[in-house]
Amino acid sequence: MPAPRKKRTAFAAIGTSVPNVDAVDKVTGRAKYGADHDRKGQLYGRVKYSEHPHALILSIDVSRAVNLSGVRAVLTHADIPGENSFGTAVPHQVVLCSEKVRYLGDVVAIVAADSEEIAAKAVESITVKYKILPVVSDPVEALSPRSPAVHAGGNLCVHQKVRKGDVGTGFSQSEVVLEREYATQKVEHAYMEPEAVLAEPGENGGITVTGSVQNLYSIRRGLARVLALPLGRVRVRQATLGGSFGGKDEAMTALCCRAALLALKTGRPVKMVNTRENSMRESYKRHPYRMKYKVGADRRGFLKAMEITIHADAGAYAAMSPFVTWRSTVQATGPYVVPNVRTDVYAAYTNNCYTSAMRGFGSPQVCFGSESLMDELAEKLGMDPLEVRLKNTLRGRSTTATGQKLNHTVSVGEALLNVTKKGRFLKTRASNRKHNERSHPKKGVGISCSYRGVSLGAEGVDAAGVTVSLQTDGSVVASSGLVDMGQGAATTISLMVAEELGVTVDRIRFLGADTSRLPDSGPTVASRTSFMAGQAARRACKEIVERIRPVASEVLGCPVDSLLFRNNWVSHSTERTRRGPGSRKAGRGRAGRKRLRLGELASLCFARGVSLFAHGWYRAPATSWDERTGQGDAYFTFVYGANLAEVEVDTETGTVRVTRFVSSHDVGRVLNLNGARGQVYGGVAMGLGYALFEEYAEQDGRPSLENFDEYLLPTVSDVPETEIVFIENPDRLGPYGAKSLGEPACEIAAPAIANAVCDALGMRVRELPLTLERVRLGRGLSRKEKRGSAGP
Amino acid sequence: MPAPRKKRTAFAAIGTSVPNVDAVDKVTGRAKYGADHDRKGQLYGRVKYSEHPHALILSIDVSRAVNLSGVRAVLTHADIPGENSFGTAVPHQVVLCSEKVRYLGDVVAIVAADSEEIAAKAVESITVKYKILPVVSDPVEALSPRSPAVHAGGNLCVHQKVRKGDVGTGFSQSEVVLEREYATQKVEHAYMEPEAVLAEPGENGGITVTGSVQNLYSIRRGLARVLALPLGRVRVRQATLGGSFGGKDEAMTALCCRAALLALKTGRPVKMVNTRENSMRESYKRHPYRMKYKVGADRRGFLKAMEITIHADAGAYAAMSPFVTWRSTVQATGPYVVPNVRTDVYAAYTNNCYTSAMRGFGSPQVCFGSESLMDELAEKLGMDPLEVRLKNTLRGRSTTATGQKLNHTVSVGEALLNVTKKGRFLKTRASNRKHNERSHPKKGVGISCSYRGVSLGAEGVDAAGVTVSLQTDGSVVASSGLVDMGQGAATTISLMVAEELGVTVDRIRFLGADTSRLPDSGPTVASRTSFMAGQAARRACKEIVERIRPVASEVLGCPVDSLLFRNNWVSHSTERTRRGPGSRKAGRGRAGRKRLRLGELASLCFARGVSLFAHGWYRAPATSWDERTGQGDAYFTFVYGANLAEVEVDTETGTVRVTRFVSSHDVGRVLNLNGARGQVYGGVAMGLGYALFEEYAEQDGRPSLENFDEYLLPTVSDVPETEIVFIENPDRLGPYGAKSLGEPACEIAAPAIANAVCDALGMRVRELPLTLERVRLGRGLSRKEKRGSAGP
Repeated sequence: MPAPRKKRTAFAAIGTSVPNVDAVDKVTGRAKYGADHDRKGQLYGRVKYSEHPHALILSIDVSRAVNLSGVRAVLTHADIPGENSFGTAVPHQVVLCSEKVRYLGDVVAIVAADSEEIAAKAVESITVKYKILPVVSDPVEALSPRSPAVHAGGNLCVHQKVRKGDVGTGFSQSEVVLEREYATQKVEHAYMEPEAVLAEPGENGGITVTGSVQNLYSIRRGLARVLALPLGRVRVRQATLGGSFGGKDEAMTALCCRAALLALKTGRPVKMVNTRENSMRESYKRHPYRMKYKVGADRRGFLKAMEITIHADAGAYAAMSPFVTWRSTVQATGPYVVPNVRTDVYAAYTNNCYTSAMRGFGSPQVCFGSESLMDELAEKLGMDPLEVRLKNTLRGRSTTATGQKLNHTVSVGEALLNVTKKGRFLKTRASNRKHNERSHPKKGVGISCSYRGVSLGAEGVDAAGVTVSLQTDGSVVASSGLVDMGQGAATTISLMVAEELGVTVDRIRFLGADTSRLPDSGPTVASRTSFMAGQAARRACKEIVERIRPVASEVLGCPVDSLLFRNNWVSHSTERTRRGPGSRKAGRGRAGRKRLRLGELASLCFARGVSLFAHGWYRAPATSWDERTGQGDAYFTFVYGANLAEVEVDTETGTVRVTRFVSSHDVGRVLNLNGARGQVYGGVAMGLGYALFEEYAEQDGRPSLENFDEYLLPTVSDVPETEIVFIENPDRLGPYGAKSLGEPACEIAAPAIANAVCDALGMRVRELPLTLERVRLGRGLSRKEKRGSAGP
Repeated sequence: MPAPRKKRTAFAAIGTSVPNVDAVDKVTGRAKYGADHDRKGQLYGRVKYSEHPHALILSIDVSRAVNLSGVRAVLTHADIPGENSFGTAVPHQVVLCSEKVRYLGDVVAIVAADSEEIAAKAVESITVKYKILPVVSDPVEALSPRSPAVHAGGNLCVHQKVRKGDVGTGFSQSEVVLEREYATQKVEHAYMEPEAVLAEPGENGGITVTGSVQNLYSIRRGLARVLALPLGRVRVRQATLGGSFGGKDEAMTALCCRAALLALKTGRPVKMVNTRENSMRESYKRHPYRMKYKVGADRRGFLKAMEITIHADAGAYAAMSPFVTWRSTVQATGPYVVPNVRTDVYAAYTNNCYTSAMRGFGSPQVCFGSESLMDELAEKLGMDPLEVRLKNTLRGRSTTATGQKLNHTVSVGEALLNVTKKGRFLKTRASNRKHNERSHPKKGVGISCSYRGVSLGAEGVDAAGVTVSLQTDGSVVASSGLVDMGQGAATTISLMVAEELGVTVDRIRFLGADTSRLPDSGPTVASRTSFMAGQAARRACKEIVERIRPVASEVLGCPVDSLLFRNNWVSHSTERTRRGPGSRKAGRGRAGRKRLRLGELASLCFARGVSLFAHGWYRAPATSWDERTGQGDAYFTFVYGANLAEVEVDTETGTVRVTRFVSSHDVGRVLNLNGARGQVYGGVAMGLGYALFEEYAEQDGRPSLENFDEYLLPTVSDVPETEIVFIENPDRLGPYGAKSLGEPACEIAAPAIANAVCDALGMRVRELPLTLERVRLGRGLSRKEKRGSAGP
C-alpha cells in the first residue's frame, strides 16, 4: 500500500510490481545453488574442527588419515603456499590453525577424499594434541588485564567513539536523567542454504571457486593471498544464493580457501558443503551487545545529552567487528537531535563463536537500546512515546550525533505519524490500558523509529560496476559486481535496465557475478545494491541509448530528443518535443515509419558497427570521518522509518503474540513494489524472531545447541499481516530517487515489539529475546533494573 | 630473422618473443578442450547420418530406439521448437533433415542416452525409408539445367564477378595471350581436436553451450533461432580449441543445436563428441576449384588483360561459399596491375560434402592459379619468373583488379626481392638446370607472391570488443569477443595489453570468450584478430591509463604526460618530457618517490573509487563494393608476401622433397616474434600438405576415405627449415602498425612448391596435389595441357 507516487507517469517500469526474475528457477529447482554444482571426478572436502574453545596446538597427526584408501589429500597449515590469513580487519583470520585454536569452529586440518563418507572417516582419524587454555567468554571480563589473551595483542578488538559537544554540560542542563542497561543476544543468520563451494583447478595455474558467496571480491583477495596467486588467476563465481543476510560475507574465504587448497593439491575439483551442524558451529553470528545508556532531557522533553557505553562480543576473530561497531556508533542515539553525545563502543575478543556482519550490521542492537530508552524517558517525563519522539526527531538541516548536517528531506517524523495514524497508536494504547485492567491476555502497542546511513559511507571504498549488453534481437544481458542473494537485486537491477532501455523485464537476462568478468564493486552489503548498482546500470544503459539514438532518429526521421524507448519499441514521442539542439529538426517529415522494434534498431546499429555493450561505473558521493572525535559526514544520505507493533501477552505462560504490524519507510522511490514489500515482510519476520525467540547461547565457549531443532525461528504462524506505508521523497543522488530498504526494514521491528510487550506488561524487559521466562518471570536485565533503577 | 625494426625502442613488449600464454596448460594437459568438459549426470548424444548422398526422406522410425533402456530422448526435425535452419547464407542449413538428404553428413535423427554405447545402439536401431535421387557430383555439370536440383532454387549457389576495363580491348592490345586451366582439390582442415560440445539447460529457461567453437556469436544466433529463445538466454562459451583453421566456424551451430535440443528435452547436460570418422564425414572442407585463366601481355611483359572463370564445388550447402568466392574474386589476378579484368566465380551445389571457410578462405586456390600462370607467362615471354612479376606487381598508388587505389606502402616487390635474394633464385635456377641435365633427383626452385585484404572488408560488419580489468595487485584480466583457436590470439592480445599498461605478460590472464560477457565481435576469421581485437584492447587499456595517470602523477609529483608505464612499474619518464599542457608542471620537484608498482597505483585508484575496468570497441574503417561491377574498395588495407621453395624430385617415384623454404611477409609490425614465426611455419606446412599430399576425394558423393590413415598429412620430416624475412611497414590503421599474417602465411606456399616442381620437371602439373602419379606420369590437368596447350 504505497503512498501516492509523485511523477509516476514518467516511468514505465520503475515502481511497478514484477515477479522476481529468478522466481521460476527457484520454485522449479532449476536454480543452481552452491551445492548443485558438481564436476565429474570431483573430490569431497571435510574439515577437522578444534575440540576446545581455547588451546595451544601441540601436534597434529594425520598419518592414519593419509593412509586411508580413497583419501586424496590431508592438509594442515604447513601446506599453505601463501599467507595463512585473510580478512580486512587485523589481526586476520586463519585458514588452518597453526599454533592455537580460539573457538570450536576453528579448523586444524582438511581432507579431500573420493566420497563424503571416506572424508568423514579420515577426519575422525586425525589426532591433535592440545594444551588447554582458560576460556574467555565474557566480553567485559575479556578486557580485564587479568583475562587470558585470545590474540597476542590483547582482547580489545576495536574501540569506536563519538564525541559531540560536552555531555557534562548536557547533563547539567538536564532536568531528567535516566540510566539504563540493555542487552541483546547472539543470533544466527539462519539462511536456508548452508555454505557450499566447488573449487576447480583452473587453466593458467589458477583456481576457480563457485559457491554460496556474498562478497566475491573480498573472498578473491583472500584466496589470492592464501594461495599466493595474482588476483587475475583467481576466479570467484557466485552460485544462486539461498539466503545470506550478511552471513556469507568475507569469512566464506575460509571455506573457499580450504576447497581451493585441496583442489590445487590434488589437481581435481573439490566440493565442500557444510552440514547445518558445521554451519552453526563455525559461521559467525550477530554481535550480542551490552549497552549502558544515560540520557538527559529538559522537562519539556527535549534531549540534552546522551552517554552510551557498549560492549560487543567479537568472539574469536575480528572479522567485520570494526565496521559493525562503527555503524552502531553512528546510529546509537537513534534518529534524534542530541546536542551532546559521548558514545563508546568496545568489541572484545572471547573464545565464543565470532561475530560479524548480519542484516542491520550493528543497528538492531542500538535500535533496541535507543528505542527502549525513549519509551522509558517518555514514561519518566509523563509523556507518551510518540510525543517525546516527535519532539526530538531529526529534521531537514538537523545535525546528527556525528555532526553531519542533513541536507535532504528528513522523514522520520512522517514515518512515525504514518504508523501511529494507521495503528491508531494513542487510542489503542488507551483502550489497551482499560482492557488489561480486567482482561487477559494482556494487550500492548509499541513504536520505534530509526535513521540509517545508506551504503558504506565512511566505512570504505564505495563504487560499483555493471555491464549491459543489448542484443540484436532486443534482448539484454546485464550483470553486476554486486550480487543477488535472495534480496531481489537481479530483479531490481533488471527493472532499472528495463526503464532505461525501454524493454520489458522478461527480455533481460541478469547474470550471476564473476570476479573475472566484472570490476571489483565492493561487498554486497549495507543495503547498497539498488543504489550503487542501479546508478551504474543506468550509466551503462544511457551510454548505449546515446549510441543508438542517432540511428533511430535517422530511421524514424525524427529528432534524437523526441525518441521514446518503451515496451521493446522505439517511437517518436507523443509528448511535446523537449527543447534542445535536436528539436530544430522537429519540423521535418517522418521517414514513413512511426516506430521500430528495439531489436530491429539494435540490428541496424550492429550492422553499422555501433557498440551495443557498455560498462557503467558509479562512485558514491564523498563522506568524511574523524576517528579521533567520531565526527564527520558519515553517510552521503540516510533513510528513515518507523514501526508499530501490537501484541497480546499471555502472562501465565509468557507467550507473546504479535497481532498487528505497521511499517513505514522512506525509500526515496519504490523501484519494484513487490520486492520492496518483500523486504519489509522479511525484515519484520526477522526482527520478530530477534525480539521473541532466537538465541545462539554459549557457555564457556560451547554452544548450547547445534541445529534448528533447538534454535527457534519464527514460522508463518508467528508473523502477523504487516501493513506497509512507503514514503517517497526522491533522493537527489539515488537512482530515480531510490535509497535503500533491506536493512532498515529489519532493524526496528524488535524494539517496536519489545515496547509493545512492556506496554502490555507494565514492566520493561531490557534484554532480548523476550523469552517465555523473561516475560513471565521478569528475568534478565529487567529484574536488575527493577531492583537497581536509575535516574535522578 | 626479422628485418631490423623501425622505432623498436619505443616498445617494451611489442615485437618481443614470448611463449604462448596457454602453452604450459596445453603441454601439461591442464587446458580444457571441448571434450574435457563434463558434468555429473550428463547424457551422451549421437547422430543418425543419412545413408545416401541424395534422397527424399519417406519416413523415420525411431520407435525401437525410444524403447531401448538408457535412452533418454530421440529427436527428429519435428521436435525443433524454432526454425530448422541456421547460417548466414541462404538457403540456410538444416539441423535435422526433414524432407530430403543432400550429402552423407546430413543428420536425420539424434539420440541422448546414459552412455555412448547405448546412444550408438539406439542410432543403429533407427530406420529411415528413402527415395533415392540421382547424385550430382560435378560442380560444372551441376549448373546444367538437366542436372537434378540439390536445392529448390537450383544448383547455382553464388556467382561473384569483377568487371574492370574491357578485356576485349586488353587482349587485342596483347602480343602474348595464354589460356590455361588449373585445378585444386578438396582438403580437410585436419585440426587435431574433433568437434565437441556440452550443452547445459540453463537458468531462466536458457541454454549454455561450451565447446570447440570458433565463432561464438554466429553459433549463438543459430541456437536462438532453432531453439526459439532470445539471444540473451543463449550462452556460448569457448573451450580451449585444438585447432580450427576456419573449420569450427558457423557450421558448428548444427552440433551445438543438436546437443542443446537434447539437453532442453531431457533437462540434463548433453555431451556430443565427434569421432574422427564423424568429423571427416560431416565437417565441411576447402572448396575444390576449377579455374580457367586467359592472360594477355605485351612483348615487354606488361599485363594487358586477364579473364578468369572459376567453378567451385560448394557441396550440399551454401555455408560460407558466397564469402569465400568473393575473396577469390578480389585476389584472382594475383598482386598485379591488370588494366582489364573480367572474373567470374561460380559456386555450385552438389551432393558432395559441403565446403566453406578454411585458412586462406578462397585464396590458396587462386594463388595457385595466378602464380602458376605467371610462371607460364614468363616462360612464354622468355623471361624469368621474377622479372615478369616485378614488372607487374602492385605499387603504392596502383589500382587493384577491383578498382581500389592503394594508399599505403605496397611491398609485394620488396617481398619478392627478399625471398629471391635470400634464396639466390636466379643463380640457383641456373645451377639447377645444369644439375638436372646430368643428375638425379632433379632440383627446382619456384617463387610465388600475393596480396591479401586484411579482415572482413566489404564482406560484412567489421567491429570487435575487448574488456580489460586491471586488478589491485597489478595483475590484469583481459578477454575478447574474438577467440584464440591455437593461432595465438591470447598471447598477441596479451602482448598489446602488456604494452599499453606497462605490465609483463605473465601478469595477464586472458579469458576464453563467452557470448554473455562480451559483445558480438563478429567471427574469428580473416586474419582479423590481432588487428581488430588489438585495436579494441588498446582502446580499453588507454581508457584505464587515462583514469589512473592523474593519481600516479599526484603520488610521484610529476606531470601526467611524463609518466612511464613499464615492467609493472610506473615511473617518471627518463626520456625528455614530451611537450603538452602538462609539461609546464615539469619544473616541480618530485614528491620524494621516483616510481611505484602498478599494483600499488591500482590499489590507490581503487581506494578512490576510480574504475579499473574498461571496454574497448573498434570499428574497422569503411570499405565499399558494387556487386554489379565487382568494383570497390574491397578492404581497408592489404598485406603482401612472397615465398620461395626449393625441391628435389625423384622422377622414378614421383616423390617431391621440399629442401628449402624462404618466406617474406609484410606484417606491418611484428607483434610477437615467436607467434609470427609460428604462423609462417604452420602456414608453410599446411601449404606443403596442400601442394603435395592432401586430398579428400569423393566419388558420386561418397568419400574415398574416412580417417587420417588414408588422408595424408605432412609430418615434421616433410617440412623443411623455413627462413623468414619479415617486412615492417607500419600500417596507419593497425595496432602499432600491425596488419595480419595467419592466412597470408599459408596461401602462397603451394604455388611456390608447384612452380619449383615444374622447374625441376620441365613440365607443368596444373592440378593439386602433386601426387606421385601426377609428378611421375604427368596425370591430371598437366597431361591435358601438354596435349591441348593454349595461347596464340
